[in-house]
Amino acid sequence: MTQKTASKKSKAASRGKSRTAKRLTVIRKVKDMQQYVKDARSKRRRIALVPTMGYLHEGHLSLVREARKVATVVVVSVFVNPTQFGPNEDLDRYPRDPSGDRRKLQQEGADVMFAPDLLELYPEGFQTFVDVAEITKDFCGASRPGHFDGVTTVVAKLFNSTKPHLAVFGQKDYQQLAVISRMVTDLDMDIRIIGVPIVREADGLAMSSRNSYLSSDERKSALCLKKSLELAKEMYHEGTTDAGQIKGAVESLIQKHPFTEIDYVTLCDPLTLEDIETLGDESLLALAVRVGRTRLIDNCLIRKKSS
Amino acid sequence: MTQKTASKKSKAASRGKSRTAKRLTVIRKVKDMQQYVKDARSKRRRIALVPTMGYLHEGHLSLVREARKVATVVVVSVFVNPTQFGPNEDLDRYPRDPSGDRRKLQQEGADVMFAPDLLELYPEGFQTFVDVAEITKDFCGASRPGHFDGVTTVVAKLFNSTKPHLAVFGQKDYQQLAVISRMVTDLDMDIRIIGVPIVREADGLAMSSRNSYLSSDERKSALCLKKSLELAKEMYHEGTTDAGQIKGAVESLIQKHPFTEIDYVTLCDPLTLEDIETLGDESLLALAVRVGRTRLIDNCLIRKKSS
Repeated sequence: MTQKTASKKSKAASRGKSRTAKRLTVIRKVKDMQQYVKDARSKRRRIALVPTMGYLHEGHLSLVREARKVATVVVVSVFVNPTQFGPNEDLDRYPRDPSGDRRKLQQEGADVMFAPDLLELYPEGFQTFVDVAEITKDFCGASRPGHFDGVTTVVAKLFNSTKPHLAVFGQKDYQQLAVISRMVTDLDMDIRIIGVPIVREADGLAMSSRNSYLSSDERKSALCLKKSLELAKEMYHEGTTDAGQIKGAVESLIQKHPFTEIDYVTLCDPLTLEDIETLGDESLLALAVRVGRTRLIDNCLIRKKSS
Repeated sequence: MTQKTASKKSKAASRGKSRTAKRLTVIRKVKDMQQYVKDARSKRRRIALVPTMGYLHEGHLSLVREARKVATVVVVSVFVNPTQFGPNEDLDRYPRDPSGDRRKLQQEGADVMFAPDLLELYPEGFQTFVDVAEITKDFCGASRPGHFDGVTTVVAKLFNSTKPHLAVFGQKDYQQLAVISRMVTDLDMDIRIIGVPIVREADGLAMSSRNSYLSSDERKSALCLKKSLELAKEMYHEGTTDAGQIKGAVESLIQKHPFTEIDYVTLCDPLTLEDIETLGDESLLALAVRVGRTRLIDNCLIRKKSS
């Protein structure tokens, strides 16, 4: 073997190694994050942000994979944002696993884990909020006052810290996706918002960090969310277009399951989130149900079958 | 003369011409503005934004000159922003002079006049606001409810449209400057805010588009604003540090002038805008006075003389 060949082989080997063990950069300061994306943008790289509250599951990882498809730099923020939790909500017991998150992001080939601490994002004297007015009023906004102000504020901050070309959100938080799209349009943020379909467990339960709160009996009952979405689709495809009738059937299916308490069931326009009385070509069915102490959400689009 | 020399001379002439008659680009759409700054940033040019409501006077032009000192691309936005006017304020009669503004900006060597129309910035369905909570409560915030929400919202939009490295504001609107600085810090906007000292008419009246509303007698009375600032400085430098005493003297000087009605007189901390009882090394005296129907503002820092 000539020296040249050996050198080529070793280069190839190290390339291979660097592909499987791509280094994940962990950044904790806003200024460092801004410097990182400034350098990346000067190299004409395309930046995608995946905002998360950590405790990453397959749902989050599907967002990271989507981001990798459309961008050359994938930044995943991991921050449990206190301003989107109400005073009696689960901020303190919200599950956290920073080292697991880091390992998963490393495996998925994310470039940056942006994990600022509380005082980095909310220092003393902080007093500015972004407020989307109309489409935050109902559904999760009604059940969780102030929740969406916290979401839009932190997302605006994360956008300014990471300056992404694109940002990827799950369709599971459908109202959140609509609210953020509205904010981006209204404030002229030059960012493309991508929604990724819900990822489910084998039995149909939508993945959520909060599923970890469920007892084994509650876990069984929680399947009623997905079942009720299926029932609604079935009714529509069999000819029912009356929203009240479908809503009634969904609610009674859920109520038959133990430990459940309905927060809301809504049939609405997928863009404006305004209630509808009659289902047209495309409608959104969204629901929030307490199962024991745990509040779960799920949704689906109900569409005409393509012929 | 050889052909070469002639060609050199003509190039020099056209360079000279292009220097004095630098072309001002007028942009009316957010997307076009974003494309312009994207190109400028890719050439590593440094962008400064000067937000204005038009009807430009020497005060505005001093901001444009400051911007030219610190940036290679100067964008001046001209937009009379309805969301910062209250229902009984002067939106309809606010003075406008788009062709004069264009000529002045051309003369000052600004690169872009960004002049979107109303529906470009506030299309149907618009519903997102940026709200700075604490330092907007008093002074102009108290007299003009909702005013600062309108200011921060439109400035956030202008920032996202023009993506400046720096933005230049007048110190005449001192509370506005403090509120915008707070928004930039709180939302992690990567923009340096520069405040430029007040520009005054020969007789001391702070320049303002609203001065054009004043009758000739009101115009004379309006000089009491600047006189009262001078009186306060004089009292401080002669040893008075009691805020109440200085405020009392300022108010009684203003009240002696016809057509005047005090909106507020405040002595406060220049950063937090919190009221002070005793003047320290640096304090802000800010005031708003109605002269006839016209509301005028003025302010000054009261500082220890440097030894």
